[in-house]
Amino acid sequence: MTDEAKIVVRPITLADKDEWKFLWRRYLSFYSTIRDDALYEHTFARLLDPAYPGMFAYVAQTQGHLIGLVNCIVHDHGWYQEKVVYLQDLYVDESARGKGTGRLLIEQVYAQADRLGMASVYWTTQTNNHTAMKLYDKVARKTDFIKYQR
Amino acid sequence: MTDEAKIVVRPITLADKDEWKFLWRRYLSFYSTIRDDALYEHTFARLLDPAYPGMFAYVAQTQGHLIGLVNCIVHDHGWYQEKVVYLQDLYVDESARGKGTGRLLIEQVYAQADRLGMASVYWTTQTNNHTAMKLYDKVARKTDFIKYQR
Amino acid sequence: MTDEAKIVVRPITLADKDEWKFLWRRYLSFYSTIRDDALYEHTFARLLDPAYPGMFAYVAQTQGHLIGLVNCIVHDHGWYQEKVVYLQDLYVDESARGKGTGRLLIEQVYAQADRLGMASVYWTTQTNNHTAMKLYDKVARKTDFIKYQR
Amino acid sequence: MTDEAKIVVRPITLADKDEWKFLWRRYLSFYSTIRDDALYEHTFARLLDPAYPGMFAYVAQTQGHLIGLVNCIVHDHGWYQEKVVYLQDLYVDESARGKGTGRLLIEQVYAQADRLGMASVYWTTQTNNHTAMKLYDKVARKTDFIKYQR
Repeated sequence: MTDEAKIVVRPITLADKDEWKFLWRRYLSFYSTIRDDALYEHTFARLLDPAYPGMFAYVAQTQGHLIGLVNCIVHDHGWYQEKVVYLQDLYVDESARGKGTGRLLIEQVYAQADRLGMASVYWTTQTNNHTAMKLYDKVARKTDFIKYQR
Repeated sequence: MTDEAKIVVRPITLADKDEWKFLWRRYLSFYSTIRDDALYEHTFARLLDPAYPGMFAYVAQTQGHLIGLVNCIVHDHGWYQEKVVYLQDLYVDESARGKGTGRLLIEQVYAQADRLGMASVYWTTQTNNHTAMKLYDKVARKTDFIKYQR
Repeated sequence: MTDEAKIVVRPITLADKDEWKFLWRRYLSFYSTIRDDALYEHTFARLLDPAYPGMFAYVAQTQGHLIGLVNCIVHDHGWYQEKVVYLQDLYVDESARGKGTGRLLIEQVYAQADRLGMASVYWTTQTNNHTAMKLYDKVARKTDFIKYQR
Repeated sequence: MTDEAKIVVRPITLADKDEWKFLWRRYLSFYSTIRDDALYEHTFARLLDPAYPGMFAYVAQTQGHLIGLVNCIVHDHGWYQEKVVYLQDLYVDESARGKGTGRLLIEQVYAQADRLGMASVYWTTQTNNHTAMKLYDKVARKTDFIKYQR
């Protein structure tokens, strides 16, 4: 990556709001999902607040601009005394792919989970998302658990 | 079910502790999982406490004995203002199967999720658990999301 | 099965034509597939002819009537000197299920494949056909190969 | 592809034997499969013989060397008067990937299947072969049929 600008992954800050909204809108549109601005504000506030126990986020930045994000949920798990981290949203802007940003974001979540003493980090992905799964197969273990939803 | 004793599904109570432990131990052994008694106590306490926001449980009872249980997690979801319910553990004792108890337990979770204004109810299951999936296909929608785990 | 009439699995004969057509029509309709009578005649003739190398069939009979069928394809396989058996269609009439007929039909195909010196017996099934897969998991090995089709 | 040597896909010939063996050995080793030379000879002969009804093959060549192969099976199908093509082995040498060779090989099989009046072209792939599935999702339809095998 000698010719490339350095990619920094760091906790989200208030100054990231506009760019985070821009990227998360792209992510949601990948899942054909539209949300109003009130939801964007509410979720950003939950991710930003270090005292809010249920969510946290990291962003990836290069040359002064955000190119990726990861939004995480922290929740109870009956099998453990500790809580677990659900890595809910992972997004790298299309123009910035192929530089290892997704992996950097996941590794930062792993590090934070370890700092917090979490029992586990997990996520789900669609079985036809082959691009994502090529990365996931390198950094995690694919289970044979499939999701059901009302 | 004219000859059958009535099956009642109700919230868990302190008096259920021994029978709940017995059934949950069987459930965990299905997943080759062993936990010490401190974990059983901690999880039971979280499920029992109506003021604890992260977990709740229902049990199925007939003729004075527990035959089934469902343990649920309540957690944030970035896509919604409301929280969601993760139906984590569902178990009906082998001797009591084929009577619709699993369905009754899921329906009670649905009703509770509606009372709490939850955005969603979901769970995961192993792709080779055909017995369970025959029920799940009737009461929920199978997604194509597969679980990854560190 | 003391109270039950005996189920016999045997090679298809010309006298089975009408009942075989009736059952195979039900099977095809499960896959929302309709064929004209010329195709029924052509396939029946291929299955019946002991000199035709590409197909064979067995039927399950009880009390003088057919209750099930299995249609098989024999084809080359580049990895083996021997040919292989593709168990293409397996059907047991709904009114006769739960008596082990499907298993008897598969076992008869296994025996015939062994007599013919086939390298393998295989088939495919839809991932949501949990009833069938409960049987298949007992008599065969589920692979992680999924089918693509133009 | 202005700087690239042209890739030609054509029917296999006797002169391809050594290079075809080399590539097919690599393909089989991907599936941890070893075969003796007699099997290589037997399969090559079946693929080469234009009068042999059960198999055919194409190879991809550039700058005088083979870089890919596709071995196909032709077999009966009870649902059709016509036969079908089972695209059994598809391989492009690692050093030559990313140039569209796999797609060219599949398209040549499609063209041949059309010339022969085949009812269908199909194949199977492992659910964790994300690299292959990114191509397959573009040129074919993923079904939800999974393979069982004795």
